[in-house]
Amino acid sequence: MERIINPVRERWVDLLKRPRMENADLQKICKAIFAEVLKDGDKALVKYTWFFDQAKVERLQVAEAEFREAEREVSNDLKRAITEARQNIEAFHTLQLTGRNEYVNPKGFRCWQETRGIGKVGLYIPGGSAPLFSTVLMLAVPARIAGCEEIVLCTPPDRSGRVHPAILWTARQCGVDKVFKVGGIQAIGAMTFGTESVPKVYKIFGPGNQYVTAAKQLACNYGTAIDMPAGPSEVIVIADRSADPRFVAADLLSQAEHGPDSQVILLTTDSCLVDWVQKEIESQLAVLPRKTIASKALENSKAIVLENVDECLELANEYAPEHLILSVENYLDSIPQIKNAGSVFLGNYSPESAGDYASGTNHTLPTHGYAKAYSGVNVDAFVKKITFQEITREGLLDLAPTIGVMAEHELLYAHRRAVEIRKEGGKEKSEKSKRLEVGSEREGQ
Amino acid sequence: MERIINPVRERWVDLLKRPRMENADLQKICKAIFAEVLKDGDKALVKYTWFFDQAKVERLQVAEAEFREAEREVSNDLKRAITEARQNIEAFHTLQLTGRNEYVNPKGFRCWQETRGIGKVGLYIPGGSAPLFSTVLMLAVPARIAGCEEIVLCTPPDRSGRVHPAILWTARQCGVDKVFKVGGIQAIGAMTFGTESVPKVYKIFGPGNQYVTAAKQLACNYGTAIDMPAGPSEVIVIADRSADPRFVAADLLSQAEHGPDSQVILLTTDSCLVDWVQKEIESQLAVLPRKTIASKALENSKAIVLENVDECLELANEYAPEHLILSVENYLDSIPQIKNAGSVFLGNYSPESAGDYASGTNHTLPTHGYAKAYSGVNVDAFVKKITFQEITREGLLDLAPTIGVMAEHELLYAHRRAVEIRKEGGKEKSEKSKRLEVGSEREGQ
Repeated sequence: MERIINPVRERWVDLLKRPRMENADLQKICKAIFAEVLKDGDKALVKYTWFFDQAKVERLQVAEAEFREAEREVSNDLKRAITEARQNIEAFHTLQLTGRNEYVNPKGFRCWQETRGIGKVGLYIPGGSAPLFSTVLMLAVPARIAGCEEIVLCTPPDRSGRVHPAILWTARQCGVDKVFKVGGIQAIGAMTFGTESVPKVYKIFGPGNQYVTAAKQLACNYGTAIDMPAGPSEVIVIADRSADPRFVAADLLSQAEHGPDSQVILLTTDSCLVDWVQKEIESQLAVLPRKTIASKALENSKAIVLENVDECLELANEYAPEHLILSVENYLDSIPQIKNAGSVFLGNYSPESAGDYASGTNHTLPTHGYAKAYSGVNVDAFVKKITFQEITREGLLDLAPTIGVMAEHELLYAHRRAVEIRKEGGKEKSEKSKRLEVGSEREGQ
Repeated sequence: MERIINPVRERWVDLLKRPRMENADLQKICKAIFAEVLKDGDKALVKYTWFFDQAKVERLQVAEAEFREAEREVSNDLKRAITEARQNIEAFHTLQLTGRNEYVNPKGFRCWQETRGIGKVGLYIPGGSAPLFSTVLMLAVPARIAGCEEIVLCTPPDRSGRVHPAILWTARQCGVDKVFKVGGIQAIGAMTFGTESVPKVYKIFGPGNQYVTAAKQLACNYGTAIDMPAGPSEVIVIADRSADPRFVAADLLSQAEHGPDSQVILLTTDSCLVDWVQKEIESQLAVLPRKTIASKALENSKAIVLENVDECLELANEYAPEHLILSVENYLDSIPQIKNAGSVFLGNYSPESAGDYASGTNHTLPTHGYAKAYSGVNVDAFVKKITFQEITREGLLDLAPTIGVMAEHELLYAHRRAVEIRKEGGKEKSEKSKRLEVGSEREGQ
């Protein structure tokens, strides 16, 4: 870890710079594969699954027999764990549903919002070395709570053409039956355009490597919404003298093992702590299976010593970390100062792992500073809110002068006219005869 | 209006096709101007304001004297109207603030969401023939309610280098003081990168022409969030025999006057109504100042006769209109069937104009079918939600087996370790002496 003591404020921006994400070349590859998926449908998916995943897939959709096999293969231990996690995630996310909010104006009109689940959503679960069944929970649970009617899940198969049983079991537990063996750019393209097998969706969710990220960006250009842009995972730990260096080291390492590009930052008021954490990292790293990955991430990590916790929080807000761990004595007092972060872990016994898996919060969070403008995935991300208004004749008469003056000044005279014409009263009074007249005209044609 | 009677379902997709938005060329122009704004800052803004708006602007930020002048120039009538509209918009949007939702697990942990206003937001108000002060209300009011700390407003000046007084007066009324005389691609670039005058923001809101839309898309690639993609404005009116043809015609025309590319669709169960509406459109159009624009939009408009209201609603959901007017007898019964729409207007006395200006709902809404995945602008768009969790030692011990099993199966051993190490207890028990040791080691260096 690079150590920086009391940097001047002018240096903060440079200190917190993340590696730039370049993707001009990736965009070209994505465009080419998207074009092929649009033209050839399933055929293109099968081709690229062979090309990128070295898997021969004949039937893209996971069959009922495969779900049954997964049911047998997943151990009871893991089933119990996934079920407990799902229950906490469900409980926390169910609270995010918002009630009806109605504005009633006594002069004769009312406005309200109603929430609708997005009709068709696509969940992307990355492949790679480990089966990310926890991400299935994090996406499928809120999608179900939101009331999304069609939920599609895409994930790359292994070389034998199979999807990991833990992913299938979790999907089924969350009520997701439409699982497709396709990953990468081709999966995002399939959900963007639809193919013979894979349905087109309105919004795509889920993490992925730089190819998937570039493909999701391109999907936006074709009118498909995405959850958020993605970058490498990251954590800031803020620690004072009350922090336990072993815990801090373990938290930094659990971030570092995600990938060599993981961003790991320690902010502390206590320069001794840095030595101790460093020492702990070395000893804990020695026994870690993903040692090489974690070491690489730690090469770019920083430990910054600052005057006080307030300054640490200011710097954290500037960085806007995906995960923020507050190992400080009076952490509850610091909450109002936290402005930009994805998910916050309070005190010595709230490690990031808890939120990654089981406590109930979501682990699909904004990285790369996007926490300044984006929330992590939550039920809101799977719904849209429609506004409704119902105005009585009296209500409209009351609003008429306001609408009229404003429309006139914006030079939108038909807008004013749509109100004026209603002042004259409805057809119930004057239009019935004219209407009948037109009816007979038409018959006479 | 083209008239289509009882089209077969297979034709629906074609019938509802919107004109495609192409912007490959625009992207090139945007990239060039963005590069110049990034390099030259204000100088580039002044240059392009001269080039595109034929306005010489020396000081980009609107001065206090200009606000004072606006205060004098705006008529009392208009001030009253804007104030009434603002009050309704404020009342409705304030209800959108969500309370705290906390999940408490009795085993010793709790999770909750907290809402924070996005720190820096940029509002774009288009120029052109009319001063869109109503859009100032629709963006600035929810931004203030959300608690955004810095609100920046950009709008192109007229040829004399002035911003319309109604825009300035409305901005000030909504507590927005930072107004800049810059529009188009260069304004979006300025808010994306920041210049000497214009602050960089985290999220950009507001409508605009195809240049502004392309620039907002490009801003996304540079890490700035946007409210939503934009296309031409549109309405679907669903009308049965209870509808008043004069009102329907007036509503279709008030959509058509927005621009020649406006999308106007009438769905009805009553083919006689089409004749009458057609007739009414002709007579109302004759006296309309924006006749040419409206006529052009009407050339591409459609009247589709369907079997019943349910079928009309299904077709509307497929199209996902920005505005949906329900001029049908039992409109309240139809609400649960509405899945995709931006804003819905119920009954014969709820014209779109009311929501465009004064009833309280927002008029910045998803177009081009984006209502399938996006909400209109509301308070949610100006906030992000941060999750928090606080776990006691007992709570973590309870979650430990679940986290451990899941982390192990995802091959993330440091994640498991971050929990295991906490089982052993904190430094309060065992670490104090070791810690002092390190302290003295360091002193000895």
